[in-house]
Amino acid sequence: MLLGKVVGSVWATQKETGMENLKLMIVQPIDCFGNSSGQTVIAVDRIGAGVGERVIVSRGNPARMLFPQKVVPIDAIIVGIVDSLEVGEP
Amino acid sequence: MLLGKVVGSVWATQKETGMENLKLMIVQPIDCFGNSSGQTVIAVDRIGAGVGERVIVSRGNPARMLFPQKVVPIDAIIVGIVDSLEVGEP
Amino acid sequence: MLLGKVVGSVWATQKETGMENLKLMIVQPIDCFGNSSGQTVIAVDRIGAGVGERVIVSRGNPARMLFPQKVVPIDAIIVGIVDSLEVGEP
Amino acid sequence: MLLGKVVGSVWATQKETGMENLKLMIVQPIDCFGNSSGQTVIAVDRIGAGVGERVIVSRGNPARMLFPQKVVPIDAIIVGIVDSLEVGEP
Amino acid sequence: MLLGKVVGSVWATQKETGMENLKLMIVQPIDCFGNSSGQTVIAVDRIGAGVGERVIVSRGNPARMLFPQKVVPIDAIIVGIVDSLEVGEP
Repeated sequence: MLLGKVVGSVWATQKETGMENLKLMIVQPIDCFGNSSGQTVIAVDRIGAGVGERVIVSRGNPARMLFPQKVVPIDAIIVGIVDSLEVGEP
Repeated sequence: MLLGKVVGSVWATQKETGMENLKLMIVQPIDCFGNSSGQTVIAVDRIGAGVGERVIVSRGNPARMLFPQKVVPIDAIIVGIVDSLEVGEP
Repeated sequence: MLLGKVVGSVWATQKETGMENLKLMIVQPIDCFGNSSGQTVIAVDRIGAGVGERVIVSRGNPARMLFPQKVVPIDAIIVGIVDSLEVGEP
Repeated sequence: MLLGKVVGSVWATQKETGMENLKLMIVQPIDCFGNSSGQTVIAVDRIGAGVGERVIVSRGNPARMLFPQKVVPIDAIIVGIVDSLEVGEP
Repeated sequence: MLLGKVVGSVWATQKETGMENLKLMIVQPIDCFGNSSGQTVIAVDRIGAGVGERVIVSRGNPARMLFPQKVVPIDAIIVGIVDSLEVGEP
């Protein structure tokens, strides 16, 4: 998964089959020190992530698997909101 | 998904099985401020995206899932045309 | 998909199951202006792409789906040879 | 797979279906000389990897396959803890 | 697939289910001129690739498909050892 920070949200009315009723957040990947690192990701959010929060984003087929009943052509979803992270070398 | 801007379109007459009758757009990935970021993507468009529009592109297997009846060997499709995006830190 | 230019071909006699009788081309990803951009890709070609031609390459599982009868462990295939591309901002 | 070094761990209480009871480690990809290289990855750990250890991380669908009984929307898992690596040119 | 050069091998005794008895090589991606390009990859080898050899590596789900009978959580495998490559512009 990638570590990211929610920086905004995005709206689209014209969309593909299966994209209805999805909350789409803009996530900026970060490293463990909070520095931006890599390309912006648009991720589905179903767990209430807000702008400014650090999140864990899962990509690819695993993201799609959360919608087993229908075709939902997404490739990224927020799977956790970070409470805390501990960085250190023993 | 990635956030991108449609910059053009591409035509191919010689192609693989399953690539018939697909509209292929050239999409330049951008960050949330509209700056180019990352490698050009060729994405299928079925929702009428035009040059200059900002779009959301889904990649990999999820893109292919939109064509359940047949083999369509694509790995990127435009899943939404952006109406607006809101960027901000609370 | 990625936009690329065929720059050469590669031969391998020692190979994995399912890799027999595949024509493997070396593709350099390019942006819409023809500039090199990103890492070299080895892609299967079944549609007669030649050195110097611009091609569209599909990657990941969708590429493998073109060989439904058997295990073919490839992750990239040329799905179109570019006739023309139109780049412009409206 | 990628070669990485475990640099920390991350906690999330608010999370998606299937993310319960997973130990999530922060992994920094490295090259074979131990230099950082590429974007931070959050990977599931089930084999007891500790901070400072070098690990092998598998990504994408293969990672998810380790949980065949249920939907676990992960895209990265630590599949090995490195004992030693040998680098050399013959 | 990616073009790479085998630079070493890696050992792990503590590992995930399905990772037993796999020979893991360290592969440095290269471009068609042999220059290093991109992040180190750990790939399974079943065809006898040695240090210093140029190889073709397949990634993602296709790699896993070579082990249809069991769960093998790998995402990269060497699918060919390069005999020769021809680079040229017509």
